[in-house]
Amino acid sequence: MKQEVSIMEDGSRIQGHMAPTVVSRLKIKNECIRVVLAETLCTFIMMVFGLGTVAQVVTGNGVFGGYFSINVGFGLSVAMGVHVGGKVSGAHMNAAVSFTMCVFGRLRWKMFPLYVFAQFLGSFLAAGTIFLLYYDAIHHYCGGNFTVSGPKATAGIFATYPAPYISIYTGFFDQVLGTAMLLLCLMALADQRNQPVLPGGEPVGVGLLVLLIGVSLGSNSGYAINPTRDLGPRVFTLMAGWGMEVFRAGNGWWWVPLVAPFIGGVTGALIYEAFVELHHPDLKSTKTQSAEDPECVPLEKCKNSSTEMSV
Amino acid sequence: MKQEVSIMEDGSRIQGHMAPTVVSRLKIKNECIRVVLAETLCTFIMMVFGLGTVAQVVTGNGVFGGYFSINVGFGLSVAMGVHVGGKVSGAHMNAAVSFTMCVFGRLRWKMFPLYVFAQFLGSFLAAGTIFLLYYDAIHHYCGGNFTVSGPKATAGIFATYPAPYISIYTGFFDQVLGTAMLLLCLMALADQRNQPVLPGGEPVGVGLLVLLIGVSLGSNSGYAINPTRDLGPRVFTLMAGWGMEVFRAGNGWWWVPLVAPFIGGVTGALIYEAFVELHHPDLKSTKTQSAEDPECVPLEKCKNSSTEMSV
Amino acid sequence: MKQEVSIMEDGSRIQGHMAPTVVSRLKIKNECIRVVLAETLCTFIMMVFGLGTVAQVVTGNGVFGGYFSINVGFGLSVAMGVHVGGKVSGAHMNAAVSFTMCVFGRLRWKMFPLYVFAQFLGSFLAAGTIFLLYYDAIHHYCGGNFTVSGPKATAGIFATYPAPYISIYTGFFDQVLGTAMLLLCLMALADQRNQPVLPGGEPVGVGLLVLLIGVSLGSNSGYAINPTRDLGPRVFTLMAGWGMEVFRAGNGWWWVPLVAPFIGGVTGALIYEAFVELHHPDLKSTKTQSAEDPECVPLEKCKNSSTEMSV
Amino acid sequence: MKQEVSIMEDGSRIQGHMAPTVVSRLKIKNECIRVVLAETLCTFIMMVFGLGTVAQVVTGNGVFGGYFSINVGFGLSVAMGVHVGGKVSGAHMNAAVSFTMCVFGRLRWKMFPLYVFAQFLGSFLAAGTIFLLYYDAIHHYCGGNFTVSGPKATAGIFATYPAPYISIYTGFFDQVLGTAMLLLCLMALADQRNQPVLPGGEPVGVGLLVLLIGVSLGSNSGYAINPTRDLGPRVFTLMAGWGMEVFRAGNGWWWVPLVAPFIGGVTGALIYEAFVELHHPDLKSTKTQSAEDPECVPLEKCKNSSTEMSV
Repeated sequence: MKQEVSIMEDGSRIQGHMAPTVVSRLKIKNECIRVVLAETLCTFIMMVFGLGTVAQVVTGNGVFGGYFSINVGFGLSVAMGVHVGGKVSGAHMNAAVSFTMCVFGRLRWKMFPLYVFAQFLGSFLAAGTIFLLYYDAIHHYCGGNFTVSGPKATAGIFATYPAPYISIYTGFFDQVLGTAMLLLCLMALADQRNQPVLPGGEPVGVGLLVLLIGVSLGSNSGYAINPTRDLGPRVFTLMAGWGMEVFRAGNGWWWVPLVAPFIGGVTGALIYEAFVELHHPDLKSTKTQSAEDPECVPLEKCKNSSTEMSV
Repeated sequence: MKQEVSIMEDGSRIQGHMAPTVVSRLKIKNECIRVVLAETLCTFIMMVFGLGTVAQVVTGNGVFGGYFSINVGFGLSVAMGVHVGGKVSGAHMNAAVSFTMCVFGRLRWKMFPLYVFAQFLGSFLAAGTIFLLYYDAIHHYCGGNFTVSGPKATAGIFATYPAPYISIYTGFFDQVLGTAMLLLCLMALADQRNQPVLPGGEPVGVGLLVLLIGVSLGSNSGYAINPTRDLGPRVFTLMAGWGMEVFRAGNGWWWVPLVAPFIGGVTGALIYEAFVELHHPDLKSTKTQSAEDPECVPLEKCKNSSTEMSV
Repeated sequence: MKQEVSIMEDGSRIQGHMAPTVVSRLKIKNECIRVVLAETLCTFIMMVFGLGTVAQVVTGNGVFGGYFSINVGFGLSVAMGVHVGGKVSGAHMNAAVSFTMCVFGRLRWKMFPLYVFAQFLGSFLAAGTIFLLYYDAIHHYCGGNFTVSGPKATAGIFATYPAPYISIYTGFFDQVLGTAMLLLCLMALADQRNQPVLPGGEPVGVGLLVLLIGVSLGSNSGYAINPTRDLGPRVFTLMAGWGMEVFRAGNGWWWVPLVAPFIGGVTGALIYEAFVELHHPDLKSTKTQSAEDPECVPLEKCKNSSTEMSV
Repeated sequence: MKQEVSIMEDGSRIQGHMAPTVVSRLKIKNECIRVVLAETLCTFIMMVFGLGTVAQVVTGNGVFGGYFSINVGFGLSVAMGVHVGGKVSGAHMNAAVSFTMCVFGRLRWKMFPLYVFAQFLGSFLAAGTIFLLYYDAIHHYCGGNFTVSGPKATAGIFATYPAPYISIYTGFFDQVLGTAMLLLCLMALADQRNQPVLPGGEPVGVGLLVLLIGVSLGSNSGYAINPTRDLGPRVFTLMAGWGMEVFRAGNGWWWVPLVAPFIGGVTGALIYEAFVELHHPDLKSTKTQSAEDPECVPLEKCKNSSTEMSV
């Protein structure tokens, strides 16, 4: 017990292994740097897992999973990212999320560029890591010829490209809608006066949401719904051998997942505010009104009753 | 702390960004309107995700998931709908659920038409949204020829149609049984004196139930088990180019998912009442009897013991 | 509030809709009947969902899911069964589970025949329900010729049959091992002094376990690991047109899932007792020893620390 | 109640069935033996389930699941292992995890050889069990000719082998990266000052992590990321008829999953420490700073607010 307490005083559990002074020196107290470090790391983790899933499916020729395993992989990637960045940076991992949080006053605007920088950096580094890890597999798959389209295209491992039959208008709407659904549901998952996700279950809740978006809104253009997730790896592929075609493909598709998610994110959050959150009864009146509420809510009614039972 | 408190007094977290008076004016205090707004939005969310999954699978020709991803997609769609409508409207998203709740006195009858209106509206709007989003894909898939049956049929993206080998009697039984299983299990998930779903886990619990129904009771007729989910998109397809065939197909199938779920829902709930809920011991006697209960219940016994341990 | 309380006194929430005297008369207070009703219903629910999944996959010819969706379907079926039977009967739904509970003194022996009766009845009725529901589909699939083996065999929808290359010895070992893994893990999931499943998460925990058994130990003989689950539907198929072949097939396979699970269940539970549960430190000493424990347990250490932090 | 208490005094629930003196004699109080027993059992459980999944897929020729079901199977296998070994041994089931725990002072070095011994023993015994269980199926699949490579290779059921196009450098990096991701995320899942997994949800959290690694980082060399998981079954196959080829294949691949995971595990944990854990604010200052924190964390903000609401 005593030892535990002494460890706790330092706020660190590795004390016994390095001199406390070393730890103290390494410890960063600047909030901004801490946030940037955490946001970079969690975006990196999400993107290594996420791009790895795509790389495996693309180079595996159907042997190592298919579209559904990409959906599961990206969903769980986001969940793990939320675990890693969690309460330090909030694990946005998505500039559209950060932007919406700023618009709704849940993040200070001065933090926005830091988040975007961290997210871009994490995505870029993850693209490089996956390139190294799957270099042999990609080479074996496409014979060393890195192409953006065609039967052996591999650029889609890293950034998103639209289906050939999609117009730019549909593609733009696709990215607006996808991000709107993301932010609308994120607001609901976090709305403590509604039916939020189980406390502690946020990472899995967000992961299931991303899995759902992939399963339902992914075929048009690969559900980037995230400017930094898309641009970082795209720039990496530009440098790594796929060339300027990564910006030209799909009638210059690259700017769509860069712009549309900002519009979609704010729209989705606004819709949730306008339809639900804005109209929650005041706290004062909540208790007196709670006798009425249950009549509309089957599951809730029972829960309320049980609360009373336990009292 | 101070700032938080002041925010809380208003019951709104966006106070700092709009003038409080504006927020106060926009705020709707009428319970019925709040419920209709929430029920419309959550049905819309569920249906955009749900129909999106089907659209993606149908137009994807096997590349963007298959039947199992439709099951997962619809299950998670319902889970997200429950998060969105949650404690405001109860997120029935299904007229058969609302009807059963009314029959069992958990929803006032005067609310029933409001719920049906909201559910129909949300489903209809979602069908329109998915039509827009996947218009290019549908067009590319079927060459612009919108058909209800045949190899390139696309009406099944929106409403349900029976398998060709199903008689109308089997189809009716299919819808009664599916909805009965839904409501029976919903009652169990919410029964606080039995083994309810984890508090806060209701959305995922309901989602897993819908996934299960899809995986086990879906092949006969596409598991509508929901009158409003089926009629709204069917009316939309009537208007959007599929024509009167959407009401003629399957020997006039359309009325089956409209009628059978009401019968099934009440039946399922009644069966749960008759077999389990009605016979729960009175609260007074619960505590004295609890010493006996565990002998039949392996998992429970241990839990009870541990409770005693912690006391 | 007042109304809620009055409802609670009766222990029933439907009071307002039927005369209380009627409810009181229908209410069954005999513990044995209550248990039989709940065990029958939950086994029925599990089996309707479970057999439905197999029926859908078999008759769907690959269009309505495959082996993995059977695994998911049966796992979730068990989870829903646990929700339905839950704290009333314990939702064994498996005579081997009931038998093992009796051997380990967690169920009275006099209850054993009642459980077996309820489980058999529920399984038999579920087989009949699925036969009705999928009669058209089965007929369409096999052309009305109900066979136990061959390319269009349909008996496997209801009961289990071994793979043709499995010897009876391997098959017996298969059923012993599968049930041993089931009971061993059930003991662990419920062991409150180890790492039990989340309180309230028992149904999903057990469901994931059954999914896992299907994914890893199912290909030899269809993972019955449950005497009543197998015999009830087998008897039904005997009567419904598949004939005596259901008992002759697989060199008279039918007795293996009837006998082996009892041996496996007790063995598995014994192994868990012998390796883990028997050696838990006494309660008195637990607290003093807890300072040591964490050193071996990474996740636990942190949890303990945090507990201290919150204190 | 009285009976419960008396049972509890003994720390055992089987008291009524054996003479207490027998139980007392069988009870092992030596911490090291208890840990070895639990670690052996949980590794055995994990590996029986895990190898069973691979055996079923390989011998099933596509009928009994595919790569994705292996991912799901191994993920759930690890989850069940954590339930079984749980708070007794910590359920490392992986020498690289034990090693990293030692390096970070969360496990005493003197325990390390005991963990490795238990993990090797459990993996070896599981390989033997799966060999027995699937002997008929393997024989039927490959015609009795046990090979390490080629179209009917079966050695991959037990140990991992690299894809033919992978260089030894890529393979080494693959194992370092995979294990680094594992340990980095394990640290995050357990970091109580960040966004840890739900209390009680550790087994499922770790299982989802392993599922994710399989889905995203598995195609290069089968994601051993675990020295003992790989060596035990490899030695078994050497003895069971596959011969020395199991050590020669893949340019002598066997040492890579034996060495690389130790490097990866420590690296991953160090990265998490360096980017996140080291910089958590001191406990003293946490409370005063908590007014700031929420501004960066959307989900958290709401949770904090609600806490205040409930106060």
